[in-house]
Amino acid sequence: MLQEKRHFDAPNDPRSGVTSDHVARSGPDLRRVDLNPDFWLPVAWSHQVRRGRPFAARYAGEPLVLIRPETGPLYALEDRCAHRQVPLSKGKIEGETIRCCYHGWAFDRKGSCVTVPYLNKPGNGRGVRAYPCRESGGLVFVFPGNPELAARTPVPQPCQVDNPEFKTRRFDPRVECHYSFMHENLMDMNHQFLHRRQMGQITARFMGQGRGEDFVEARYSFARKGGDQPLAERLLFGKHKDIDVSQQPVDEIVTVRTSYPYQTLQIHDKDGDLVMDLWVAYVPQGQDQLTTQTFGLLSVKRPKWKFLLDLAWPVLGIFTDRIFHEDKEVVEMEQQAWRELGGDHNVEVFPVVRNLRDLLIRSGAPTVRTAL
Amino acid sequence: MLQEKRHFDAPNDPRSGVTSDHVARSGPDLRRVDLNPDFWLPVAWSHQVRRGRPFAARYAGEPLVLIRPETGPLYALEDRCAHRQVPLSKGKIEGETIRCCYHGWAFDRKGSCVTVPYLNKPGNGRGVRAYPCRESGGLVFVFPGNPELAARTPVPQPCQVDNPEFKTRRFDPRVECHYSFMHENLMDMNHQFLHRRQMGQITARFMGQGRGEDFVEARYSFARKGGDQPLAERLLFGKHKDIDVSQQPVDEIVTVRTSYPYQTLQIHDKDGDLVMDLWVAYVPQGQDQLTTQTFGLLSVKRPKWKFLLDLAWPVLGIFTDRIFHEDKEVVEMEQQAWRELGGDHNVEVFPVVRNLRDLLIRSGAPTVRTAL
Amino acid sequence: MLQEKRHFDAPNDPRSGVTSDHVARSGPDLRRVDLNPDFWLPVAWSHQVRRGRPFAARYAGEPLVLIRPETGPLYALEDRCAHRQVPLSKGKIEGETIRCCYHGWAFDRKGSCVTVPYLNKPGNGRGVRAYPCRESGGLVFVFPGNPELAARTPVPQPCQVDNPEFKTRRFDPRVECHYSFMHENLMDMNHQFLHRRQMGQITARFMGQGRGEDFVEARYSFARKGGDQPLAERLLFGKHKDIDVSQQPVDEIVTVRTSYPYQTLQIHDKDGDLVMDLWVAYVPQGQDQLTTQTFGLLSVKRPKWKFLLDLAWPVLGIFTDRIFHEDKEVVEMEQQAWRELGGDHNVEVFPVVRNLRDLLIRSGAPTVRTAL
Repeated sequence: MLQEKRHFDAPNDPRSGVTSDHVARSGPDLRRVDLNPDFWLPVAWSHQVRRGRPFAARYAGEPLVLIRPETGPLYALEDRCAHRQVPLSKGKIEGETIRCCYHGWAFDRKGSCVTVPYLNKPGNGRGVRAYPCRESGGLVFVFPGNPELAARTPVPQPCQVDNPEFKTRRFDPRVECHYSFMHENLMDMNHQFLHRRQMGQITARFMGQGRGEDFVEARYSFARKGGDQPLAERLLFGKHKDIDVSQQPVDEIVTVRTSYPYQTLQIHDKDGDLVMDLWVAYVPQGQDQLTTQTFGLLSVKRPKWKFLLDLAWPVLGIFTDRIFHEDKEVVEMEQQAWRELGGDHNVEVFPVVRNLRDLLIRSGAPTVRTAL
Repeated sequence: MLQEKRHFDAPNDPRSGVTSDHVARSGPDLRRVDLNPDFWLPVAWSHQVRRGRPFAARYAGEPLVLIRPETGPLYALEDRCAHRQVPLSKGKIEGETIRCCYHGWAFDRKGSCVTVPYLNKPGNGRGVRAYPCRESGGLVFVFPGNPELAARTPVPQPCQVDNPEFKTRRFDPRVECHYSFMHENLMDMNHQFLHRRQMGQITARFMGQGRGEDFVEARYSFARKGGDQPLAERLLFGKHKDIDVSQQPVDEIVTVRTSYPYQTLQIHDKDGDLVMDLWVAYVPQGQDQLTTQTFGLLSVKRPKWKFLLDLAWPVLGIFTDRIFHEDKEVVEMEQQAWRELGGDHNVEVFPVVRNLRDLLIRSGAPTVRTAL
Repeated sequence: MLQEKRHFDAPNDPRSGVTSDHVARSGPDLRRVDLNPDFWLPVAWSHQVRRGRPFAARYAGEPLVLIRPETGPLYALEDRCAHRQVPLSKGKIEGETIRCCYHGWAFDRKGSCVTVPYLNKPGNGRGVRAYPCRESGGLVFVFPGNPELAARTPVPQPCQVDNPEFKTRRFDPRVECHYSFMHENLMDMNHQFLHRRQMGQITARFMGQGRGEDFVEARYSFARKGGDQPLAERLLFGKHKDIDVSQQPVDEIVTVRTSYPYQTLQIHDKDGDLVMDLWVAYVPQGQDQLTTQTFGLLSVKRPKWKFLLDLAWPVLGIFTDRIFHEDKEVVEMEQQAWRELGGDHNVEVFPVVRNLRDLLIRSGAPTVRTAL
């Protein structure tokens, strides 16, 4: 991340980033661009994979079984027995192996069949695919792409999970849409109108953008036009003053960033200290990549009187859940419109989102699906 | 309607209209003929569209939003924001405009985008489709076809809604079949066998037919073969005597008529006075036009002692609902058979229905869908 | 069956029948091979078809109506009226005919239309397909294929239904998979690992196989490795001793046989007497043949003290239901994997199952479906 080539556009007018032109509808349909599998992607929470209990997960239509054997570290296999393709996750962990529930074939952590109970010799040479597998920040990551690239690809250290100055919340809703809608949703803070019931009359003020080969970021400040500031928002963002947008001194800066394939949202206070840190990965479930499993971590800096945050924590949970529910509804409506129209009709006027769309297209899987 | 070229076939034998020949299975499959959109078609009841509350409707796969703004008359737009295709019906009516729920773009009654909140200039030139829209008889009609034809196409004045001598009932069941099955069902009164549990052993007597460029009609009288006449039927049709069909003096005449794309059923008593008037429109919902939203109005002439009809009204409702439920079941079974067989295998022996099928095919939308 | 050309392979080593080679993935996909319809196949239990009540059944996407008329034997027709394809099973049996519920057309046992109520002449020459139909062993069999072959094709005499020395249980679960998975499941007794919770640590010992032009069979004995023998299993199989597999004297022999298209499992005791007899037919429901209606009969020999079997009967029912439920789950998972992979990836190591697969492919319907 440190060596990335940055070129920030500092707009002379805070709103100059917005134009009325739009990206020509050419090139691949973003909603048909598969996620690039040559990354470490989360498929489960660590606590879900219990010792001795196979756990079924999925990546882009590929069934996976996560196994925490009686001895040794966790491993991940294709969740289909080599014999009759029955899910290994329905089977039984014995020692370091997983035995298929049907005829009892056993496979080791490399996916090799080591026992066919009714054969005279051990194993039969056949096997199932093994996936590189790591744990970080309470998440189980697999590497679904070319395994040779796994070792030199960094495993994410999401958020402030291990930082005692922050309190971290996990969330993992499933959303019925292509992952790209999720990136666009968070990146374009002009959608605060959607959350007007939760957040009142708040307006995002675009402060500039940055981009590089593998990232796009946008910076915002927020101004309240009227109404009271909700308590939970105040805890997340600090207290706002009711002032004119154009003359407002900047308090906090919200930075949304897609560092392909992950996304983060960070809030720094007026002293430049990080006060909120959000990390999200959007993991395609089906082969069509039109269902997305979200894995998210939200870290909030503990105030000086730490019990205040603990007290407010449930309220904060409800607040963020409501916000997320509104986002989920709207991105699923976008996906539904895409289905009905048979393709992407997006008319984008916000350059940051256009840059994001370019990033997602050029970073995606090389082969673009042509059929639905 | 008055200038239509009529040629009535008065059969010498009341049953001569029926032959054992059948329409050759050639030409387009009627169930793949789309309804002609160059007509005023109902998409909602007026009372459903409340002031300040956007209402989502649908015509043949096209989502519509009906808006009764704070000032000015009702209008209809395509229910997709020009920006990201999210339904405008989820948005907020402000003045005469509708604002999208997501990023707050606002559209006027012409469908033009008049505000993008985070742009420096009003609107961005883009817009959504506006549909001509009228209210009549408690229904909201739109013109889904070529808008240039809307002005010279008459808006229906359905039934006896505004006639104080009649009491009118609304109904709007949704039926899982192509609209053509509905037209055929009502037109062919030989299907009284279907309603034998509701109406007893009644037999339709075909009295002749008429047809013109844009209509087909059939006239029937009814004879009861045995059993008691249900009360509700007696109120609808008057009292029948148990007499031989061939010698029976004609009491009431039932006239069923498809005046494309609408359908009516009228009962005139022996003095030629209208005593019952039914008006129905069958509105395709999905793009495949295999789901139909019915909008119907049933006007019954008030007897001299008007309270009698008020008393009988709930019974009449139950009676007609049961009849309709049986019709719904049978047309949905027809549709299901069509799906399984992959096409229309109808073998029609009744010339009126053959003429009706011709009318529906030649009046339908010019392009016939070829795929399911 | 008596004239079939047998050649039994008696293995010198009980396990020699198992190798690590596998059938090359060539030739037709077994899961796309339709069942050969030129056989008598059950579509209902006799008791389900009541006098005067039409009964709807189905064979491989073809709807059937079974009619037990007021007089004369049961008959079977295509369940679609010749007029508008509405199911005749929704109609009314009158005398020996079935009248369609919609316009009252009547059909006789040959499928000829004998009455159109509003026509001047009896019938109109059109008709619906009639299927040869027989009853045997409490089942209604139809012949869905070429009717000219029906007379010379034997109607099954399933199981020991009419043998007073046996008590017989019926079962008829529906399974969401191709019929071939069911044949393979029962034939390959090495899948006892699946039933370890129901049957304890039991191991199948392959004793040899047989095959002919139209059948494949496998013989097994069973050995218990440890744990107590469940009561129900003991009633079904007799008491096992806990002994070493290789030295165990053979008590009972289990013979599983697919005599196309039926399957049987018989247990003979050490004196060679039949003690259990299972007969099953797997009947495709949809046109894609990926849903199977099972019709099975399980006959158990009554012990000397016959009331013992009556006492144990409910337990036996629960036991066999649980076993069957596990089988149903696993074959449905196989079918699901087939769907996801878009074809059969079975890697078979057991020669009996390979022979069975060959039998099912070469005996199946001549035309192999190419699309899903």
